[in-house]
Amino acid sequence: MSTVHVVGAAGFSGAQLAALVDAHPHFDLGQVTARADAGRRIVDVAPEYRVNAVLQELDLDAVAEGDFAAVCYPHAEAAVAVGQLVDRGVRVVDVSADHRLRDAALYPQWYGFDHPRPALLAEAVYGLPEIARGDIAGARVVANPGCYPTASLLALLPMRGRLADVVIDAKSGVSGAGKTPTPDVHYSSVADSVRAYKVLQHRHTPEIAQEIGTDVLFTPHLVPVDRGLLASCYARIEGDVPHPDDLRQAYADFYSDAPFVEVVEQPPGMRAVQHTNYAQVCPMVDQATGRLIAFGVIDNLMKGAAGQAVQNLNLMAGRPEDEGLR
Amino acid sequence: MSTVHVVGAAGFSGAQLAALVDAHPHFDLGQVTARADAGRRIVDVAPEYRVNAVLQELDLDAVAEGDFAAVCYPHAEAAVAVGQLVDRGVRVVDVSADHRLRDAALYPQWYGFDHPRPALLAEAVYGLPEIARGDIAGARVVANPGCYPTASLLALLPMRGRLADVVIDAKSGVSGAGKTPTPDVHYSSVADSVRAYKVLQHRHTPEIAQEIGTDVLFTPHLVPVDRGLLASCYARIEGDVPHPDDLRQAYADFYSDAPFVEVVEQPPGMRAVQHTNYAQVCPMVDQATGRLIAFGVIDNLMKGAAGQAVQNLNLMAGRPEDEGLR
Amino acid sequence: MSTVHVVGAAGFSGAQLAALVDAHPHFDLGQVTARADAGRRIVDVAPEYRVNAVLQELDLDAVAEGDFAAVCYPHAEAAVAVGQLVDRGVRVVDVSADHRLRDAALYPQWYGFDHPRPALLAEAVYGLPEIARGDIAGARVVANPGCYPTASLLALLPMRGRLADVVIDAKSGVSGAGKTPTPDVHYSSVADSVRAYKVLQHRHTPEIAQEIGTDVLFTPHLVPVDRGLLASCYARIEGDVPHPDDLRQAYADFYSDAPFVEVVEQPPGMRAVQHTNYAQVCPMVDQATGRLIAFGVIDNLMKGAAGQAVQNLNLMAGRPEDEGLR
Amino acid sequence: MSTVHVVGAAGFSGAQLAALVDAHPHFDLGQVTARADAGRRIVDVAPEYRVNAVLQELDLDAVAEGDFAAVCYPHAEAAVAVGQLVDRGVRVVDVSADHRLRDAALYPQWYGFDHPRPALLAEAVYGLPEIARGDIAGARVVANPGCYPTASLLALLPMRGRLADVVIDAKSGVSGAGKTPTPDVHYSSVADSVRAYKVLQHRHTPEIAQEIGTDVLFTPHLVPVDRGLLASCYARIEGDVPHPDDLRQAYADFYSDAPFVEVVEQPPGMRAVQHTNYAQVCPMVDQATGRLIAFGVIDNLMKGAAGQAVQNLNLMAGRPEDEGLR
Repeated sequence: MSTVHVVGAAGFSGAQLAALVDAHPHFDLGQVTARADAGRRIVDVAPEYRVNAVLQELDLDAVAEGDFAAVCYPHAEAAVAVGQLVDRGVRVVDVSADHRLRDAALYPQWYGFDHPRPALLAEAVYGLPEIARGDIAGARVVANPGCYPTASLLALLPMRGRLADVVIDAKSGVSGAGKTPTPDVHYSSVADSVRAYKVLQHRHTPEIAQEIGTDVLFTPHLVPVDRGLLASCYARIEGDVPHPDDLRQAYADFYSDAPFVEVVEQPPGMRAVQHTNYAQVCPMVDQATGRLIAFGVIDNLMKGAAGQAVQNLNLMAGRPEDEGLR
Repeated sequence: MSTVHVVGAAGFSGAQLAALVDAHPHFDLGQVTARADAGRRIVDVAPEYRVNAVLQELDLDAVAEGDFAAVCYPHAEAAVAVGQLVDRGVRVVDVSADHRLRDAALYPQWYGFDHPRPALLAEAVYGLPEIARGDIAGARVVANPGCYPTASLLALLPMRGRLADVVIDAKSGVSGAGKTPTPDVHYSSVADSVRAYKVLQHRHTPEIAQEIGTDVLFTPHLVPVDRGLLASCYARIEGDVPHPDDLRQAYADFYSDAPFVEVVEQPPGMRAVQHTNYAQVCPMVDQATGRLIAFGVIDNLMKGAAGQAVQNLNLMAGRPEDEGLR
Repeated sequence: MSTVHVVGAAGFSGAQLAALVDAHPHFDLGQVTARADAGRRIVDVAPEYRVNAVLQELDLDAVAEGDFAAVCYPHAEAAVAVGQLVDRGVRVVDVSADHRLRDAALYPQWYGFDHPRPALLAEAVYGLPEIARGDIAGARVVANPGCYPTASLLALLPMRGRLADVVIDAKSGVSGAGKTPTPDVHYSSVADSVRAYKVLQHRHTPEIAQEIGTDVLFTPHLVPVDRGLLASCYARIEGDVPHPDDLRQAYADFYSDAPFVEVVEQPPGMRAVQHTNYAQVCPMVDQATGRLIAFGVIDNLMKGAAGQAVQNLNLMAGRPEDEGLR
Repeated sequence: MSTVHVVGAAGFSGAQLAALVDAHPHFDLGQVTARADAGRRIVDVAPEYRVNAVLQELDLDAVAEGDFAAVCYPHAEAAVAVGQLVDRGVRVVDVSADHRLRDAALYPQWYGFDHPRPALLAEAVYGLPEIARGDIAGARVVANPGCYPTASLLALLPMRGRLADVVIDAKSGVSGAGKTPTPDVHYSSVADSVRAYKVLQHRHTPEIAQEIGTDVLFTPHLVPVDRGLLASCYARIEGDVPHPDDLRQAYADFYSDAPFVEVVEQPPGMRAVQHTNYAQVCPMVDQATGRLIAFGVIDNLMKGAAGQAVQNLNLMAGRPEDEGLR
């Protein structure tokens, strides 16, 4: 058994993550931390998970070498905590954005802070298990991908290196915006409506571009759904345009070892993956114009955050990739 | 033409009210006031109404005798503003709760403040036009009924004096909770769920009891709907139990002069009244047990707040009751 | 290991049930039957469950003595299938209504057919595990309770024998109406609205009355939710009115052995039980009037149908009551 | 006063259209026709509009020269009815797709039927008032644009002739799918989910391409909303890339005479246009890559169908373009 601390366990992702760890056959739930909610139980802030562990302030003296941690703090704060934990011999999945961008210069530009531990950043592994199983297994710090990048990359990666003019139109459920009540997540603002936001400015843009290896035009939309994220991706295919069957086969081959990626024939909806760690991807091709249309759909709190973090913890701990996630 | 000031026009009810006044053939929109949002236009805080008037702090020196005002302030603050306006010769519809309860002693008990103007309270008319047209027409202060009382009373009033053991199970859309973002109105809290709240403690309870003339067991529920309010009412009928047809006829007779109350044969849904000032009521009877089952449904921002306020303003100004409300 | 056949596995309840059986550590999924969808896999009609078993017509020659079956056919048809299965030595959970009412005369009255096997009906056990564990364990036919009765009874049973004037105002998600597309379940009919239906006529009425032992005024409502059912129950308490703390303690004692019933202090929402077999109940009391207000909330497809069926199958097979249901 | 017949008034668009005509100060509602629902009143099939006119079979002998008609039949059937009406001197807005495509050969390809009246097709005017006011005014047959084309074209037309690689990712509310209950519009299928459909195959594709003058990659999505349609459009700008302010000014100039098009600065949501005939468009530009991002949002039943039909009828009848539509 290994101990997993969940640092920042009162938010949507953190509570889901604590619940997954709590139910995991190989992991013991260590500290579950929060600041404003310290002293409350997780079941008090997220009743649906039935986790009775009490939230507390992070106690660095009580973590042990060889422990694992998942950090769900806001960006900039996460980088500090990750560094402190690694210094004590804890291996960390950073669920925040603080170790995703390899180029440290992008942090002041996109996130408004200078990275406090550039060496750790350089060492961190981008934790999309479908393309980095081996590196994740041995990493001290794994950067858990963002929800939009996860859905987008899974839809596009089998064609990486052959795509240009990439347009990603993504639709996210509201839980992706976090738990803080703001006018934008008021029921009366979200219900019965769809709108784009942060056009040309969303912080997941450089992350997607980094991993797909080309510029992307990424436009997120908020939809009246609690959990779920659909990335509709459009790109020009360079070189020969594959037959639709060959394209689907190429995707199936690419994900043949991926327990959580399902290549499907019809455009997938959020319903088929909600409350699971599965992603469904559906590649299609317009042979007349040589365009790829590829859909990727996930539960933003599972494969887009907490579930993927457990998938990474499994790999780091030498456990089956899907343990505790079925 | 008469001038109508909307005091507190940045919230859900106030903005809807300003829009109705702005489009009204007989009313001119006077001051539209707000505190936090002063300086913004109504269209900036409520784009769907396309009202360009600029929100400002209330300027008591700029109101004139003979003007009308509708006050949408929070309780306790409303009572002060209403008094100031009446002192200047303005006739007021108080959309807040501050003039609804005839017994001043109920204010400290239910609302936590002592009423500052008990004489005005004693003078105020409870503004449900269906039962008080005449008094409203001559009133200086009209207390606009609450949303829950409006739906409940319209469902029950034709049987007033003959009911006992009244149980009201009400379901309200989220806009009834107001515009302030709180955890309870977060989309991820409201969507896909229904729950009761303020059981035995909701402030509309004494208001309903006052008007129906008997104690009521009132239980409000929050439902995943933006606008709409359904009151399902159950009561024992004292005396002879009417035949269902006679019951419906009695309701039709009771509301024969009411332009906004529709007596319907099937349990009504919110959809038929949304964005309108109509109420639908449907009385049914269990002849075996002598129980009345009566449904009342309204749009909580229209017949439950702003629309009813305009209906009252029409009566006060000697205009047709439905002017500007079709 | 025991074999469990799911008869009628293409609908909402049946597919959920097949998925639970498929993942159950002690049960093997036997035949999964359907008529219109025969030849398709369950994953094709209900992708979210990832069950690849192929739907087929029921083959009575291929069932074995000692097998179990859960029957999810429409009423009247279910009674026939249950009889055929029992005749072959199969022990059955009837998820339909066909074995719930002890008085056979109620079937022509409420369901429009004469029960074909009154002896089996007389033998059947009403399968609410919280009050009938022992009888369920030895039964040949268990009548799985309806969704509305489950939520209502769990909310009221601890006070059985002490209640009068019972009013139940229930709110159900749309999946409870079944999979057949009708105008009433069209998204544009359900969304943004709440309405009562089958007032004084719903078939769950006599079932609730039978188990609670008194007449009830039961009014179901359709709410814009997929899965979830809330019963808000109101009743006069006969005899001494308990203190709220004592009432809650009485409920806690009543359910002390029930692994799936949670007695909670705040009115529960659907969110806390969705996709689980848990019920939450919350008893409150109006000491002034001696009224009980009790809420019961479940997932209508889990504790209200498929989950409860597995709970019953566990008891019948001598397994832990909660096996395969956490 | 002019008489307007609504042919096919029982569906979502037709009932909305009948309601608009019924309330219109210059139009008299003529025949309102339906087949399956003949004999019922519009209020029975669409209670929210409160239109008491009785649906009947189309009676061609009772239309008069100089009348107007709006035809809301399914495609192929509409073309026949339009022809019959025009032959009797009735001027028609065809709300179906049957007169939108100038190339008659596209009908067998995209709609599966040969156009029965190619001469009328050749004569018909594509009825997007923002670009064809003059032609509409004199037309015998106006082809009311589809909902997706309306939103997409309004977002793109100011840049017509300067765009390449056009990608349109559109999100439609469910009412756009029509009133027939199918599995795809079952609440439990639509709620909590978003999915693409008819990828590369949607019939609005050639219509958009025809009007924008270049190929488009059009992908519609179904979202859990009743009324509303958002088209998110992406395209490469040929030639000089405008400054964002200049781009917005160009849009404002283009629509300076359009009473229903609002050029807005923030990505628009459906909420601001629901239940209105307004469209909001928001052009943005990625100056680094020379890409246009333009959003267009409408109510699919108003500006996307019935509202636009009345706008066209106003122009045909020489009335103010916005009469009866505020």
